[in-house]
Amino acid sequence: MALLGSEAGIVNVGVAEFGMAPRSHGAVVVQLDWRPPADGDRELGLLLARLEDDADDPVGAQVRAANALAVERITSARPMLVGVRPASEVVPALGPRTILHAGPPIDWARMCGPVRGAIVGAILFEGWAVTPHAAFALANSGTVRFEPCHDHGAVGPMAGILSPSMPVVVVENAPGGTRAFATMNEGLGQVLRFGAYDAEVLTRLRWLATTLGPTLDAALQLHGPVDLRTLIAQALQMGDECHNRNAAATSLFARRLASAIVRTAPADVAAQALDFLGQNDHFFLNLSMAACKSTMDAAHGIEGSTVVTAMARNGVDFGIRVSGTGDAWFTAPATVPDGLYFPGYGPDDANPDLGDSAITETRGIGGFAMAAAPAIVRFVGGTAEDALGYTREMQRITLAHDADFALPPLGFVGTPTAIDLRRVVESGTAPVINTGIAHKEPGVGQIGAGIARAPLACFADALREVGRRLNVGGAA
Amino acid sequence: MALLGSEAGIVNVGVAEFGMAPRSHGAVVVQLDWRPPADGDRELGLLLARLEDDADDPVGAQVRAANALAVERITSARPMLVGVRPASEVVPALGPRTILHAGPPIDWARMCGPVRGAIVGAILFEGWAVTPHAAFALANSGTVRFEPCHDHGAVGPMAGILSPSMPVVVVENAPGGTRAFATMNEGLGQVLRFGAYDAEVLTRLRWLATTLGPTLDAALQLHGPVDLRTLIAQALQMGDECHNRNAAATSLFARRLASAIVRTAPADVAAQALDFLGQNDHFFLNLSMAACKSTMDAAHGIEGSTVVTAMARNGVDFGIRVSGTGDAWFTAPATVPDGLYFPGYGPDDANPDLGDSAITETRGIGGFAMAAAPAIVRFVGGTAEDALGYTREMQRITLAHDADFALPPLGFVGTPTAIDLRRVVESGTAPVINTGIAHKEPGVGQIGAGIARAPLACFADALREVGRRLNVGGAA
Repeated sequence: MALLGSEAGIVNVGVAEFGMAPRSHGAVVVQLDWRPPADGDRELGLLLARLEDDADDPVGAQVRAANALAVERITSARPMLVGVRPASEVVPALGPRTILHAGPPIDWARMCGPVRGAIVGAILFEGWAVTPHAAFALANSGTVRFEPCHDHGAVGPMAGILSPSMPVVVVENAPGGTRAFATMNEGLGQVLRFGAYDAEVLTRLRWLATTLGPTLDAALQLHGPVDLRTLIAQALQMGDECHNRNAAATSLFARRLASAIVRTAPADVAAQALDFLGQNDHFFLNLSMAACKSTMDAAHGIEGSTVVTAMARNGVDFGIRVSGTGDAWFTAPATVPDGLYFPGYGPDDANPDLGDSAITETRGIGGFAMAAAPAIVRFVGGTAEDALGYTREMQRITLAHDADFALPPLGFVGTPTAIDLRRVVESGTAPVINTGIAHKEPGVGQIGAGIARAPLACFADALREVGRRLNVGGAA
Repeated sequence: MALLGSEAGIVNVGVAEFGMAPRSHGAVVVQLDWRPPADGDRELGLLLARLEDDADDPVGAQVRAANALAVERITSARPMLVGVRPASEVVPALGPRTILHAGPPIDWARMCGPVRGAIVGAILFEGWAVTPHAAFALANSGTVRFEPCHDHGAVGPMAGILSPSMPVVVVENAPGGTRAFATMNEGLGQVLRFGAYDAEVLTRLRWLATTLGPTLDAALQLHGPVDLRTLIAQALQMGDECHNRNAAATSLFARRLASAIVRTAPADVAAQALDFLGQNDHFFLNLSMAACKSTMDAAHGIEGSTVVTAMARNGVDFGIRVSGTGDAWFTAPATVPDGLYFPGYGPDDANPDLGDSAITETRGIGGFAMAAAPAIVRFVGGTAEDALGYTREMQRITLAHDADFALPPLGFVGTPTAIDLRRVVESGTAPVINTGIAHKEPGVGQIGAGIARAPLACFADALREVGRRLNVGGAA
């Protein structure tokens, strides 16, 4: 190792403080940024060793085969937008008085402001109560069921509230045998997903249900299914990462469907629908999320796989699900993202990390594809070089590159995809998530955007569960 | 200079062959890629010295002030798309039996195949003849006037043929007091701009004139003028360079205008128009060109300015115009671009460089903004790193960065804009142009895409004319 040629004095590995004393006496100290695997946790280190790919060991061989299958399910997914239908009609096992929410399971008592506000709005929209006060009382009464979107094949941005009468986009991934659902994006300003529930919000929700949903559904039936994988691949070449930036994908989608809308809707309705698509650069976000959900659900449930199939936040807890650990959620406290705030707001106003939209990063786009979207650093902070750096960093914790999602600024290498629990725990490198930042009070809305990191504790817990299911303890 | 530390033997500057003899005897020779200014031309070198910015010299002060004004006119331009009208109604001084073409002036006898084919098509479209044979004879008879688009405030891609009944987009640049015009893009396949003139081509031209033109014009009157500068700025953040890649700009434009089209046209016409915009990723090219033309015309005609205000090709000659040299064209033979060919075609099939679309590079986008469009290298050849390299190289021959046209991969620096004759001649760095490659036979169409370089001789001739007009000879 030729670090400083003849001038090198001391090489300090790991804890930087150990180099301070000799440096204070004039020595040249080279600091190596090294951390022991699994942050020095001996049990996890041993477990990691047992779970490494190893053709000659039954456990290592199973993990390797399971992960290969998971990667194959992800890269062979073909999510197609097939329709827009009322949730009650298509979302499986959605009870009549059930409201779905973003992130891992949570009780009303622990929910954050924006999620509570959005639930009040959904209850008013459904007509289960007629005043906000009554809706709040109903939500608090224990007679409404609250369940994660993810447990019903659905995903929702921010609060992620989904009630039976809301229209959802329906995405089918035939190769994986999966279907996924998401609400339609409401645009910016006063919107349900940030916990607003005033008359403007409810009027828009009704228009989405009675007008835009049926209009898009009719256009899709004439046009035929829209290949979301191809659309995302195009958008990644056009400055989108399809989480926080969806301007290209929304434009491509609106342009693609415009003539079918005109051919199936009355002119005034078609014009309204095109205006809505024209003014909401985030319309595609929910389609992107449903595409990613249908993809990752196809990779879920493979015994022995250490691939992460969901990352989601309810504004209080951050949770992950892993292919080889069934329906279990592994959670840790959600943190406030680092980012840029709109004028007048700061970190004290921010709700901790919120929403199912991290399904995009789980799939390998969003923050993992930031190299595709250097312009986004003006929104979430940092430099164009940082954008490349995030993608390169995520290459270290993923199992594959998805060649169909090519990143031009990195020489057309595919997006890093299939987060491997083992690599996260071993390296201490947390998945990066591009995200909007919600005000902690319901209904104030978005107050910034930034970068969140998944808490490492979830990944260590999930790894232990993989070991338990494979009967390999860390100390075994 | 520490080139090779203690090992360096000989540094050879300039002509590489001088280093071969010592190298053959075992010496270490470091080759410096240096060329004398103006390629060693003493007259041009002296002229360059006289024309340098110099506050204490009347000529140097005039050149500096003239170029500062030209840059100000370029960066303050606000090209707005205001309508789509028949050329005969809006293009100035367009005589009744006049056909405009791309590039510098050229006689029928010297025209290339695609331009001749497109002229035959225009004559058939106008009804001045009813068979291709008769149209050819008429074109050859001397009774039809052929003039450059550029001399009428217009620009056209490839053959650039514009006849009185064709609809043109009308772009107004109020700060510069200029108006510019371009035909509407026909899409790919058999199209007039590559010299095709069969029934399909003529049917499409009639549909553009009778249907799409009036439809877009009506939509624009309802919507109001479209700010093309803002649209280009957005598209540069979305992988377009707005010459060879216009997918984002076309999508943004179609999405912006869709509801106004629906509100002003019958449903079947609106659907046809939206289908056409939906299927032609190059529709925005002609808008981009007209925007650039209106911008560069505002910088034209400033005595003493060495800023290039047009680069254009007629398939035989490459020509430039310069702000300080009036209406003169400086020409040199057009060359075949370096590029990638579609299967079955090669350089022997290619027409030399063709079209007015190099107005985009003249303005600082297109090849000058390749850093914004790394994905384009899959179309024109090279690597994503090459794309950054072209933009960096063009920074050396331009006077300004246009901060409104920010390039994310280069840390949001603005596009290099305002090509300075002096820098081109001094450095021998030729402007780079992204371009389609046309088959040399009329009507075959596009057979590839690549990179063309403007011939340096035009720039030297133009510099001499600037000197003549300022009464400073090279030997003075």
